[in-house]
Amino acid sequence: MSEALRHSALLTDLYELTMAAAYFENGLRANASFELFVRSLPPQRSYLLAAGLEQALDFLEAVRFQPEDISFLRRHSAFVRVKDAFFDYLKNFRFTGEVWAVPEGTLIFSEEPLLRVTGPIIEAQIVETFLLSTLTFQTMIASKAGRVVAAAGGRGVVEFGSRRAHGPEAGVLAARAAYIGGCTGTSNVTAGARFGIPTFGTLAHSFVMAYRDEEEAFRRFQQFFPDDSVLLVDTYDTIAAIEKIIHSGLRPKGVRLDSGDLVDLSRQVRHRLDQAGLTETRIFASGDLDEFVIADLLARGAQIDAFGVGTALATSKDAPALGGVYKLVDVVSDDAPSYRAKFSKEKITYPGRKQVFRLPNCDGSFREDVIARDSEHYPGAELLLSPVMREGKRLMPSPNLGQIRNRARGELSRLSEPCRRLQNSEPYPVRFSRELGALLEDLRHGLTHLAGEEAT
Amino acid sequence: MSEALRHSALLTDLYELTMAAAYFENGLRANASFELFVRSLPPQRSYLLAAGLEQALDFLEAVRFQPEDISFLRRHSAFVRVKDAFFDYLKNFRFTGEVWAVPEGTLIFSEEPLLRVTGPIIEAQIVETFLLSTLTFQTMIASKAGRVVAAAGGRGVVEFGSRRAHGPEAGVLAARAAYIGGCTGTSNVTAGARFGIPTFGTLAHSFVMAYRDEEEAFRRFQQFFPDDSVLLVDTYDTIAAIEKIIHSGLRPKGVRLDSGDLVDLSRQVRHRLDQAGLTETRIFASGDLDEFVIADLLARGAQIDAFGVGTALATSKDAPALGGVYKLVDVVSDDAPSYRAKFSKEKITYPGRKQVFRLPNCDGSFREDVIARDSEHYPGAELLLSPVMREGKRLMPSPNLGQIRNRARGELSRLSEPCRRLQNSEPYPVRFSRELGALLEDLRHGLTHLAGEEAT
Repeated sequence: MSEALRHSALLTDLYELTMAAAYFENGLRANASFELFVRSLPPQRSYLLAAGLEQALDFLEAVRFQPEDISFLRRHSAFVRVKDAFFDYLKNFRFTGEVWAVPEGTLIFSEEPLLRVTGPIIEAQIVETFLLSTLTFQTMIASKAGRVVAAAGGRGVVEFGSRRAHGPEAGVLAARAAYIGGCTGTSNVTAGARFGIPTFGTLAHSFVMAYRDEEEAFRRFQQFFPDDSVLLVDTYDTIAAIEKIIHSGLRPKGVRLDSGDLVDLSRQVRHRLDQAGLTETRIFASGDLDEFVIADLLARGAQIDAFGVGTALATSKDAPALGGVYKLVDVVSDDAPSYRAKFSKEKITYPGRKQVFRLPNCDGSFREDVIARDSEHYPGAELLLSPVMREGKRLMPSPNLGQIRNRARGELSRLSEPCRRLQNSEPYPVRFSRELGALLEDLRHGLTHLAGEEAT
Repeated sequence: MSEALRHSALLTDLYELTMAAAYFENGLRANASFELFVRSLPPQRSYLLAAGLEQALDFLEAVRFQPEDISFLRRHSAFVRVKDAFFDYLKNFRFTGEVWAVPEGTLIFSEEPLLRVTGPIIEAQIVETFLLSTLTFQTMIASKAGRVVAAAGGRGVVEFGSRRAHGPEAGVLAARAAYIGGCTGTSNVTAGARFGIPTFGTLAHSFVMAYRDEEEAFRRFQQFFPDDSVLLVDTYDTIAAIEKIIHSGLRPKGVRLDSGDLVDLSRQVRHRLDQAGLTETRIFASGDLDEFVIADLLARGAQIDAFGVGTALATSKDAPALGGVYKLVDVVSDDAPSYRAKFSKEKITYPGRKQVFRLPNCDGSFREDVIARDSEHYPGAELLLSPVMREGKRLMPSPNLGQIRNRARGELSRLSEPCRRLQNSEPYPVRFSRELGALLEDLRHGLTHLAGEEAT
């Protein structure tokens, strides 16, 4: 039941199913390839960290139409003329195709395919909506996390945003992606249980307010979590709360500042804690933080050891959507690929299956990427896309999240500083290969020449 | 997702559970009241439409700890000192409290509680994260939809954003909220099946590209969906595609423009369609639309009959998070309420259970709101909060989505034009009652006076 709902084939746009019915009726059973990529980076981003592949592959392996899904479609006005054969097909629907993908935690840039699906066109079409929302959402959050973690300069960042995420499930996935992007952990317990992500918590204002006295609340919590407690000190007056902690002899692991001038407060708090011998007590800060606020706090000398970042991270607030697309690039019949491209004035899609070739400098840092036909060769280049699924089955066990997170860290360390700066970054060089450009022109010419009769 | 997964008590922040353990151990079984409200509206919003209550109540009725959830907590380092009695308590955990709420589809403003939970403090605390993410997300999307629908001035707006939503489940909930906010329907099939929302679809570029010839693609689709087809015409060249439709004798229900200058193109397309006698063929527009783009298109004379709005709507892109909070307002022991408030310099929370009194003008339009103690009376006022759950059970069947949507439309019609304008709107008058202000001052004074000893 659980998996059935999470992997329902109805998690799609209606037109995927009406098109499927039309393909089916027209006997179009050809294999097609679709590539998923982000058309352009938001102004506030200079790189992306790929994430979400695990959930995408889970879905592709498990996607099904349940009997009630098919009943729903049978009753839908759009399907009144659709014959039984199509619904019988849906009953046995499986994803049987091949998938190439960029590993999670890999740096990617605009126009670079992070996933390619090749399979019967109906199957590849029906899974589009799920793949896009899963991959672009997690990629967006992992990328935001990369920035926030960089701003914290080695201090821990805990993802705290579940309450502001786009629904409870988005909170869980945001926690996963934020961990990939370098966060120390999350407050989201389901993310801990489901994915093994370290989970952290402090104390809420309500706990302090539930007792008649702030000191009593601190004492009650501290006695219960002697090794682990992070006491929230801004419910009434931050400095007064610190004095209460000191005078009561509590030695919490940390205190959390959640409002006020965090530079000034953190310095005062550090000073008082040190004076009182609580040098081990760490200062944790939260409250509408993002990469810019964190960088600014640290630049102004804030004495903060770790950060809790919520809304800005779990919603990628300054860039809450990526322009992810899933484009048909070829249709194979009789083993001969027929390339497909889109030529509308504003949006061009390059035809054919692609590979991303990443060319390193001598020191191992990344020099430039070439998006090329998958048949091309670039000596010394790292190939970003590799096969991960054939005939609808994973080819290998998934890496664990720790490995993915390490990969992301490694990748970021190979991106030059000007390209990963928080502001005024330089664009990382990405170009299309000449061969790919030539294929596009051939196809465009063919189209023009044959007045839409023959596109290959 | 299964009911067990969707209603898992682990869909929460870790600190809710550590605080629960501390309350449990300390014997704090008092009833507490928490109020959920939005602290301030984003700059681009002048009102909110409450949404998400249905999913919130579903959760409260069904929330459980599964045996594996409890095993996870037992292994968690934060719970090493927690005794078995607490885990036994979790085994039988139910939400047994009372809930007051504003009906879905009701207009609300900043600081106005849209939900109040009263129950054993542990229960009320554990459900916080789920309630916040569910209610603020759907409220945010319904409110955005209200704006987009208003901009369309009576033309249909279909929510198209699942692929850019924050994961697949967010897409389903966004579709629900968008429908409440006035959309005609959605492209999301699960939203149609689960909630009965009308679902719509057109045609993707890939379908056009899958055939060797655009005209063939149109013919194949049209023959299959003769009454329902909306042909996408911008894959290669919009005007050329319209000519193909005309010359081939197809009479689609609609055509969809997805790129280019929509004012100019829609006028040309309308003109050519009318010339050719296709006066019934409607023009549907999509492609990075939002309320401002739509208002501008219509102001400049675009000939568009309906809009598909995706990213901007499903992510509330210009304001992708609401500052929702869930604040303790009283703790009841021995039947005497002890009020709670927060006084940190920047953030004040008013104490005690509140009601929102909405005062109408003679013509039925809304004049002003007073946030007051729930014991106050304002003759002629509408009371926004009413009981919806007691002892953990719903008090009445839920209204259907159509009723909720009608309610939203009715509410918006009673808000003055200056207050619901897309830009430069006037703030709707909301004030706290004098009695509430006095209670806050008493409490603050009491606190100061008693130096944190006694907060009541």
